[in-house]
Amino acid sequence: MTVIDLRSDTVTRPSAGMLAAMTSAPLGDDVYAEDPTVNQLEETVADLLGHEAGLFTVTGSLANVLGVRALAPPGTEVLCEASAHIARAELGAHAAVSGVTTRTWSAPAGQIDLEQVRALIAPDLGPYFVTTAAVSVENTHNFGGGAIQHGFDALADLLDEAELPLHLDGARLWNASVASGVPVAAYASRAAAASVCLSKGLGAPVGSVLVGSAELIREARVWRKRLGAGWRQAGVLAAAGLYALEHNVDRLAEDHANARLIAAVLADAAPGSVKPDQVETNIVVADLAATGRSVAEVVEAARAEGVLVGGVGATQLRLVTHLDASTADCRTAAQTLARLLTS
Amino acid sequence: MTVIDLRSDTVTRPSAGMLAAMTSAPLGDDVYAEDPTVNQLEETVADLLGHEAGLFTVTGSLANVLGVRALAPPGTEVLCEASAHIARAELGAHAAVSGVTTRTWSAPAGQIDLEQVRALIAPDLGPYFVTTAAVSVENTHNFGGGAIQHGFDALADLLDEAELPLHLDGARLWNASVASGVPVAAYASRAAAASVCLSKGLGAPVGSVLVGSAELIREARVWRKRLGAGWRQAGVLAAAGLYALEHNVDRLAEDHANARLIAAVLADAAPGSVKPDQVETNIVVADLAATGRSVAEVVEAARAEGVLVGGVGATQLRLVTHLDASTADCRTAAQTLARLLTS
Amino acid sequence: MTVIDLRSDTVTRPSAGMLAAMTSAPLGDDVYAEDPTVNQLEETVADLLGHEAGLFTVTGSLANVLGVRALAPPGTEVLCEASAHIARAELGAHAAVSGVTTRTWSAPAGQIDLEQVRALIAPDLGPYFVTTAAVSVENTHNFGGGAIQHGFDALADLLDEAELPLHLDGARLWNASVASGVPVAAYASRAAAASVCLSKGLGAPVGSVLVGSAELIREARVWRKRLGAGWRQAGVLAAAGLYALEHNVDRLAEDHANARLIAAVLADAAPGSVKPDQVETNIVVADLAATGRSVAEVVEAARAEGVLVGGVGATQLRLVTHLDASTADCRTAAQTLARLLTS
Amino acid sequence: MTVIDLRSDTVTRPSAGMLAAMTSAPLGDDVYAEDPTVNQLEETVADLLGHEAGLFTVTGSLANVLGVRALAPPGTEVLCEASAHIARAELGAHAAVSGVTTRTWSAPAGQIDLEQVRALIAPDLGPYFVTTAAVSVENTHNFGGGAIQHGFDALADLLDEAELPLHLDGARLWNASVASGVPVAAYASRAAAASVCLSKGLGAPVGSVLVGSAELIREARVWRKRLGAGWRQAGVLAAAGLYALEHNVDRLAEDHANARLIAAVLADAAPGSVKPDQVETNIVVADLAATGRSVAEVVEAARAEGVLVGGVGATQLRLVTHLDASTADCRTAAQTLARLLTS
Repeated sequence: MTVIDLRSDTVTRPSAGMLAAMTSAPLGDDVYAEDPTVNQLEETVADLLGHEAGLFTVTGSLANVLGVRALAPPGTEVLCEASAHIARAELGAHAAVSGVTTRTWSAPAGQIDLEQVRALIAPDLGPYFVTTAAVSVENTHNFGGGAIQHGFDALADLLDEAELPLHLDGARLWNASVASGVPVAAYASRAAAASVCLSKGLGAPVGSVLVGSAELIREARVWRKRLGAGWRQAGVLAAAGLYALEHNVDRLAEDHANARLIAAVLADAAPGSVKPDQVETNIVVADLAATGRSVAEVVEAARAEGVLVGGVGATQLRLVTHLDASTADCRTAAQTLARLLTS
Repeated sequence: MTVIDLRSDTVTRPSAGMLAAMTSAPLGDDVYAEDPTVNQLEETVADLLGHEAGLFTVTGSLANVLGVRALAPPGTEVLCEASAHIARAELGAHAAVSGVTTRTWSAPAGQIDLEQVRALIAPDLGPYFVTTAAVSVENTHNFGGGAIQHGFDALADLLDEAELPLHLDGARLWNASVASGVPVAAYASRAAAASVCLSKGLGAPVGSVLVGSAELIREARVWRKRLGAGWRQAGVLAAAGLYALEHNVDRLAEDHANARLIAAVLADAAPGSVKPDQVETNIVVADLAATGRSVAEVVEAARAEGVLVGGVGATQLRLVTHLDASTADCRTAAQTLARLLTS
Repeated sequence: MTVIDLRSDTVTRPSAGMLAAMTSAPLGDDVYAEDPTVNQLEETVADLLGHEAGLFTVTGSLANVLGVRALAPPGTEVLCEASAHIARAELGAHAAVSGVTTRTWSAPAGQIDLEQVRALIAPDLGPYFVTTAAVSVENTHNFGGGAIQHGFDALADLLDEAELPLHLDGARLWNASVASGVPVAAYASRAAAASVCLSKGLGAPVGSVLVGSAELIREARVWRKRLGAGWRQAGVLAAAGLYALEHNVDRLAEDHANARLIAAVLADAAPGSVKPDQVETNIVVADLAATGRSVAEVVEAARAEGVLVGGVGATQLRLVTHLDASTADCRTAAQTLARLLTS
Repeated sequence: MTVIDLRSDTVTRPSAGMLAAMTSAPLGDDVYAEDPTVNQLEETVADLLGHEAGLFTVTGSLANVLGVRALAPPGTEVLCEASAHIARAELGAHAAVSGVTTRTWSAPAGQIDLEQVRALIAPDLGPYFVTTAAVSVENTHNFGGGAIQHGFDALADLLDEAELPLHLDGARLWNASVASGVPVAAYASRAAAASVCLSKGLGAPVGSVLVGSAELIREARVWRKRLGAGWRQAGVLAAAGLYALEHNVDRLAEDHANARLIAAVLADAAPGSVKPDQVETNIVVADLAATGRSVAEVVEAARAEGVLVGGVGATQLRLVTHLDASTADCRTAAQTLARLLTS
């Protein structure tokens, strides 16, 4: 049985072309900053995102940990939406590793809520109160169903005025850019530190890049080493990243079309479960509450038919499209689920 | 000029009776748990609050740090209202010292919002997501204008069901109890860890008490020492606390009446600045937005006339009544402010 | 039965004169730096020790935590002798709270060993290696039997040359000064941060002072608050400290004489157990190995006769003289032990 | 100019055979523990080292951070030699990330000194003193010139008796085993947690493995994720590790022979600079003190002739042999240095 895995866009495997790039890349010791392929990747991504320097990291979580730490000293806070990846899916790393706390707002689809942000910002009132050191935004927002942050520029303006740095968790910034037509640099250059991921929609096996000023990256490099993540001949992975940037960015439009296709099929089969016009990028969240079907049951039944999807909370299915799932795969998966939901 | 200081109820000075109690108390070395007065205070407060054991700490902040740490391991989170003392006024200690993060909800007067709490609670979904280890509530809520937590029992019920511990920041639990008629134990016994303060409304110079199970307090004692706060002949301060418990709890009703008096005068002078029916305990928050007066200006002008009040943010005054401010003092202060606001 | 407690000089209780000073001191809220007695104590001690500013802390451990943190950023190291108080008796606080690590040398009586220090100092070799941020010395050295650091100036010279700051744990610096005739400022002014204790030999119930530059103390004040140790009307304790400085420093010479008296009696009773010429200040360590007596047994037998002494490790007794133990008390205690050791 | 790089055995590049293994390995998402090649590597190494389970990590430093954390809770200490990698070359990570402190002994060639270990071990004496949670040993010892730990079993026996766990930093345990003839499992099975590296002498581009009990590895997996190092299709790197285990372990004997060759040439050219009988594995340390030559100068002059070597401190050169440096390369490098030292 062929398996169609739509649990996440992290499950992609390197293509033959990518593997060839990996095996032919010149290598060196990246702890000494001597891996030419890593250096090339870091420069390429920094340029693309409108920043001075970049740092290749083993995950997007690490890029976020290093970026947040660089902006927020121990004992300060970062504001973010309550279901942002840094607050929800990084195991409390910002507190546990960096001593940084968060206060959060909640908004549909993980959107920026300017009024709430304004109310939360804590200026430096002397040594009694916590001080807001940065605001972090995830774009697109994973647990917000891959939503694009439509208030991004307004937030960036607000923070400029407040003289507060913006942190951008851009794990799926490529998706935001391809779907919105806004260049990645137009987003990332508003942030003092931004992370992008090469191993989700872009299909590299491992790796993210943090960008920022040369000084910020210098400090992040020290902390990357301190966290035990200063790797050696990482060029073998950086080559995959460079290949991905060249071949796999524009094609994200296909993933988005496939997600809309899935949404349409599910909306048809279980009206109200999906709002197709809210599917902006490569993530589809379907709410089964009205269907009377249990998420665990549907996930298991689909798995039995070779379709892997994720369950989120008590009532939601989550499907993520990516380069290892063709349009035909996505149609098959959607139809399988539609059948299970209506039978 | 006599100064009337209503900036906070932390400014009280020990009375002659309290000083006499302090100088006659039997003392010992509390690091060895051999100070009889400290031991008596810890037992007394634990009994009062319906808990097995107590620990005398130098501040309420420390009692909170130790209580939260005991309930939440590094890398987990505690949920609380966004302007709760632990999130807003402890300098990020929970992250910086204990590696614990927070996610927050926002509600008028710092109230419990059951729906938001329910949405935020993060069950243990495996090692990808942060897990909620406890929910913390401040009662009364300082930045919420001394408001009593009216949803306290409903939250405690919800957490029982979710098998999550409740942390109670009871810095002003005495005020909540006196104003609501609910015994302190009825609040505190619902919590796995609770702190109460002896140096705010109760008038002791220094000190708070953390209560919980014998095991929790044993662990908290070790961390108190690790944080450099294992004091020696602390009985001299504990004696003040015992005196305060005996003499200064019931009289909090006077502070509440004085706060209502102030609120009435200000509401009269600047309609809309204060909602007198929201003044439940000993804190009055007056919003000057509609008066067109600047907070800094009014604070300074009042200071020039011997009335000290606090400014909160851009538009609010804050007055706190306490045992060193008589009814006459409070009336004078209110009238002074009223004159400044209307002249 | 009258008890003679020689377990530690931390067990002293405030005298009537000290209590009178405590109850008549002007007080204020030290979180706002408005307690006049605290301010006076901080200035007095800073002046005495040749530093710009001081900070009153609840313990010597806290003063050390704040001092070390101010000199050593997270991820750096402090060098010290392996049985120094900061390494041995502060529950790993420097790592747990401040992220600072230690590497250690071992020397008889906890002495400075210049050659070992020189070998351990780690210069900044780039972001691969830990960097030495400071060297810490305890003077007198508690677990070194109250020994004075005779190599203090040579170490300070070495560190000047290496451009490394010295941290001085001066919990018993008063003893070192009285015994050696070297003024406390001659020691403390060589250090970038120094702590002194008011509640050991000096007899105050609670409190230590950290001194350093104005900027260092400003930062330490923020972290004192973050660690939950920003107390309120602490002047009641500061008054005890001021009283102690005025009345109880010079008299440490009596404690030292009493310690020598005890040492002489024990050396006589159990030859080899104590080397009287190594008793430089107020601590006597007696090794029972040659007597064939178990420490636990002797400690218990002495307790039964009203003499409290400490056991250290498997074979050592530890006696500490202080202002609550008169010469007669010390003679009685020594004779009691002598009898127990020889019977 | 062909460059011979003997700065470290971390500089090796993957061979054609290794690259072929990397591109043909089956992959999956290791965050879900679904990468078959990673799983195979973890099982293979655990078996080899006599442990229940393994965890593939991006570096040996990370494997050490996770291993130490698993054995030592925040606020406890780990004992190690003062120039051990965990104390000297991991940027204070154990304190900064895990809140664990170290106390250290110093010994020639980084050897175990049983008497010092015995004196340093701090039993649990109650909540006043730091407690020793583990002892860590690096075998071979990098800054000890690649020395084998000859007291390994005696230390393990001592710790068994003291009921303390042993942590083994086995970055170069393969070298120790090949040189001593002792199977790696005979070393590693004495430790509660052990790390081994695949990217030093073994030649894989990236990666180490931590081994321990199933429970320890479960906890380490969570912290690996929390530290941002839970990678995705890491099988591409694990395949290199598996290839290295099959092809590159026995051949370490060649590296050792090459190191002895270099030592002999240098000892001949600059008598006393190297003690050839102390070169036990693949590291040669040459002390230039007696030659009157500056390390920086010699390093530069060698670089100009295409020979890269490291400088350690003020007077030492360090050369490390590995699979990318043939016997001829090593001879050339040694002769180049010999010429520079004698000209």
